[in-house]
Amino acid sequence: MALDHVGIATEDAAGLAERFGAVFETQIAHSETFDGMYIIFLDMNGTYLELLEPVDDSDGPIATFLAQRDAGIHHIAIMTEDIATALENARAVGIECIDETPRQGAWGHQVAFLHPRSTGGVLCEFVQQ
Amino acid sequence: MALDHVGIATEDAAGLAERFGAVFETQIAHSETFDGMYIIFLDMNGTYLELLEPVDDSDGPIATFLAQRDAGIHHIAIMTEDIATALENARAVGIECIDETPRQGAWGHQVAFLHPRSTGGVLCEFVQQ
Repeated sequence: MALDHVGIATEDAAGLAERFGAVFETQIAHSETFDGMYIIFLDMNGTYLELLEPVDDSDGPIATFLAQRDAGIHHIAIMTEDIATALENARAVGIECIDETPRQGAWGHQVAFLHPRSTGGVLCEFVQQ
Repeated sequence: MALDHVGIATEDAAGLAERFGAVFETQIAHSETFDGMYIIFLDMNGTYLELLEPVDDSDGPIATFLAQRDAGIHHIAIMTEDIATALENARAVGIECIDETPRQGAWGHQVAFLHPRSTGGVLCEFVQQ
């Protein structure tokens, strides 16, 4: 499987996109408001940086992360062509899954998160386009 | 520029490599002991997960990170074909650089780190092969 993106929690997605654009020569591939977040995907030549900015004062996962740990890297996402089987296999090898079944994520993709307790403290996400 | 790898701080690189191998079908591309760390690069089909385990009880950056923040994602690395120019350009747009000039990193690569204060709380590394 391949890395799809790195998710980054930020209070200012547009500002960070501009900064990363200036330093890493990266451009915006996609942006949308989804699930209480303004999300920008920056094209890193085959993978993406996913900038996640909470847009309401909800207690969503990114707002909570920012309050508890401050801005920074939030998760990694791994691309799979068969997310249901990937999730089933993860469970079979003892991984604790946050999402029991795939659900709709940003950019119209199917996603499922694994619990960092099972993956060395790394919040991991399966993505199927 | 393209994403080269995601650096992950861990107390058990070999154990985490086995776990990621079982869940993400990834294999070890390279491993070495470098600068007080045992380092494993896992092949993610064009990018890598770099597992960083301190192997002495020094006060190196990974040991410090583990003590202060626990195991998990540590940094992202961006590949460039000209690290000296990339670093010069970063400074020109106001980025605070941890490494003023490129230095020898793992796997024989030239590396330079940027300060997370300048990049939205994300520790970023330039890599030139």
